[in-house]
Amino acid sequence: MDALSELHHAGDRNDKSSLARSLVAEGLGTAYLLIAIVGSGILGERLAAGNVALALLANALSTGAALYALIVWLAPLSGAHFNPLVSLMLACRGDIAPRVAAFYVPAQLAGAVAGVALADAMFDMPPYALSSHLRSGPSQWLSEFLVTFGLIGMVWTCSRLRPSALAGAVAAYIGAGFWFTATDFANPAVALARAFTDTFSGIRPIDVPGFLVAETLGALAALVLFRWLVPNLR
Amino acid sequence: MDALSELHHAGDRNDKSSLARSLVAEGLGTAYLLIAIVGSGILGERLAAGNVALALLANALSTGAALYALIVWLAPLSGAHFNPLVSLMLACRGDIAPRVAAFYVPAQLAGAVAGVALADAMFDMPPYALSSHLRSGPSQWLSEFLVTFGLIGMVWTCSRLRPSALAGAVAAYIGAGFWFTATDFANPAVALARAFTDTFSGIRPIDVPGFLVAETLGALAALVLFRWLVPNLR
Amino acid sequence: MDALSELHHAGDRNDKSSLARSLVAEGLGTAYLLIAIVGSGILGERLAAGNVALALLANALSTGAALYALIVWLAPLSGAHFNPLVSLMLACRGDIAPRVAAFYVPAQLAGAVAGVALADAMFDMPPYALSSHLRSGPSQWLSEFLVTFGLIGMVWTCSRLRPSALAGAVAAYIGAGFWFTATDFANPAVALARAFTDTFSGIRPIDVPGFLVAETLGALAALVLFRWLVPNLR
Amino acid sequence: MDALSELHHAGDRNDKSSLARSLVAEGLGTAYLLIAIVGSGILGERLAAGNVALALLANALSTGAALYALIVWLAPLSGAHFNPLVSLMLACRGDIAPRVAAFYVPAQLAGAVAGVALADAMFDMPPYALSSHLRSGPSQWLSEFLVTFGLIGMVWTCSRLRPSALAGAVAAYIGAGFWFTATDFANPAVALARAFTDTFSGIRPIDVPGFLVAETLGALAALVLFRWLVPNLR
Repeated sequence: MDALSELHHAGDRNDKSSLARSLVAEGLGTAYLLIAIVGSGILGERLAAGNVALALLANALSTGAALYALIVWLAPLSGAHFNPLVSLMLACRGDIAPRVAAFYVPAQLAGAVAGVALADAMFDMPPYALSSHLRSGPSQWLSEFLVTFGLIGMVWTCSRLRPSALAGAVAAYIGAGFWFTATDFANPAVALARAFTDTFSGIRPIDVPGFLVAETLGALAALVLFRWLVPNLR
Repeated sequence: MDALSELHHAGDRNDKSSLARSLVAEGLGTAYLLIAIVGSGILGERLAAGNVALALLANALSTGAALYALIVWLAPLSGAHFNPLVSLMLACRGDIAPRVAAFYVPAQLAGAVAGVALADAMFDMPPYALSSHLRSGPSQWLSEFLVTFGLIGMVWTCSRLRPSALAGAVAAYIGAGFWFTATDFANPAVALARAFTDTFSGIRPIDVPGFLVAETLGALAALVLFRWLVPNLR
Repeated sequence: MDALSELHHAGDRNDKSSLARSLVAEGLGTAYLLIAIVGSGILGERLAAGNVALALLANALSTGAALYALIVWLAPLSGAHFNPLVSLMLACRGDIAPRVAAFYVPAQLAGAVAGVALADAMFDMPPYALSSHLRSGPSQWLSEFLVTFGLIGMVWTCSRLRPSALAGAVAAYIGAGFWFTATDFANPAVALARAFTDTFSGIRPIDVPGFLVAETLGALAALVLFRWLVPNLR
Repeated sequence: MDALSELHHAGDRNDKSSLARSLVAEGLGTAYLLIAIVGSGILGERLAAGNVALALLANALSTGAALYALIVWLAPLSGAHFNPLVSLMLACRGDIAPRVAAFYVPAQLAGAVAGVALADAMFDMPPYALSSHLRSGPSQWLSEFLVTFGLIGMVWTCSRLRPSALAGAVAAYIGAGFWFTATDFANPAVALARAFTDTFSGIRPIDVPGFLVAETLGALAALVLFRWLVPNLR
């Protein structure tokens, strides 16, 4: 079973039990993704003795490696989108049914929010606390636009032309993005959930909408460009 | 020979000499795994000049990379479980004979304990010393539950659906887990052996039972969920 | 579609629209490569609290991982050269038409220069500023000669004999080169573009010609040696 | 062409020109390996502001990544042994002709010594200087025995049963070994050459023989054990 057929997998399963399995896998994977992001942020900051570069290095390496493992693990079960924009893009292209995407997005959100609470609990923090981490302004929105544009363009292209390398490419890109962008969320479920942890990886609730707009615009721009760059290739 | 057939390999070898080979490979691999964990912990702490984040970074990268190499190397010989819970899970699913699992577990334990002594000796430490590193409490048990749940779920799924990517996924997950969990043992043989080194990677003997319980519960939960998520797929 | 056929891909597309697609992909990839180099350099330096090793570690890991993702992503569209010397080498060997190389080089340069401005903007820096980072002298030119020699020899060999491993090998080599050479540019488009950012990754404009000469000599030496080492193998 | 046939490649080429090509590739690769080890050691120490853990982290990551790239690149040309013990082991097993091994070893030594001079020159150091870095004593010899035992066992096994994963496994193992052993040379050509640089990676000439003995014993032990563990499998 290659990665492409996996991305379509949910759409092929018509019975309720199969969709349920996909949703559980999708929620589970998104929960572990947030555990990786938030957990490694907390431990990184705690151990780095004030050196933010060290904390971010741990955060980036841990998230990139975990994302790779999660995609390899769960792609055969749900496609391993873990990201509403990926599900919506695949629905736009007709790879999954719109109805499936409509179930995936809440499963991703629920998984993300649960993951934050679990990460906080593992490190003796209250499960939820609103973040006070300011992340706003045009340069951060540009950053969020660019990183999402790249991610959606990459998934669009690789899911068609390089399915077996998709997990490694996406994980390397997101891990690298911790450093080459000022933001590296690229995922509305992640952005929303990170508002609920007042730790290294948090984002002020009031700053979330700006990120969601920038991410959506980046995804739309990728859709327009890559519809032309990778045409008729199915 | 793919990874799946490798996992079953020991069961296919009926003669004594084949089982003996598997047991040597399994013990050897677990010994090198502990050498990697304990050795890189010692050197990391020694060189990091008090910065725990740096020590843990070295510990995580070295263990993850070594684990990848060990699985690739020894999976064709023994399946490269290196972990009693993996052997028991495969026996539960009928992939290996219960008798084989019964031999694997002591081989893993012996390898793990020998690895600790070799690591300590390489760095001029006494071969065995009881650890004084406190690791206990509900948040650590939750952490150990979650990381083991993920590991067993991943092995269950990948050994069936993604055998060739199993080594990379498991190594990335365990390497990342040094940061996204507070514990990252996920392995009773490792937990037991680490009680015998009073260095960076140690765990107080009195804290081991709590870890063993949390790991076992995590593995059982994964068994129940993934029996439903990945059914009838052989 | 394997990596070899991808490298020839542009040459096979005779119509204008296909060439246009290749050029957009090539420019886009080179832009993201510079975003990765310059962006991670800025953030690394900003967060490292004066420790240059930490900044360079972030810079090297981020660039290597991003380069891997970019090659996997865009190789099916343009060959993912991102480097005028790679395009010229492939034209010399007859893998792509000279006319295609003549279009690729300006696309790479435009992408590189745009990437620098985007990276600077993401971090609230002026889009362009001439670098004051001195990089000159015989030891740096030797370094630049050696790293380019290796890169061109590697692309020459792997594109013929190991196409599917090319992305990983090149990314690992360039990421490692941040540390094992004193320079690690190996790419005239990168060298030129880096003159326009007065940040961690910059190079004084007056030092660029020395780098270009060293890179060109390294590429020529690789061409001569590998034409003999890997002959008649197509 | 898979990695196994590559390891035998030199033996299949009977004409002088083919052997010459293999020797050039083997020397070139060993030179770049030493450039990576020594160069990243120098730059790591220079930039790490006295923090040895940071210098070793750069050294380990750079060497591991470079080794991966070099094996992928040059294995189709010479087998990419870069290590006299690997060549001798393959000759023992009959994979290459003894005569080929007899040419490979001096090519590796010459490459290693040239690599040290090039690395030193890139960083404005004298090309050769005897090292004053003490590396001796039973614990270091044990370390060197264990790391070589693992390397030779891994090459023995993977070259037969997992040829396509050999490059990644060996590179991960050696990179990890910088941390989990106290030494991580595992290669007589590397040990000898490192005596000629008075930098981070050096070894006192008087300490080299101890390393050579430990490495040879480790290789012999691996030969004995793995001849039994991986029998009749060709």
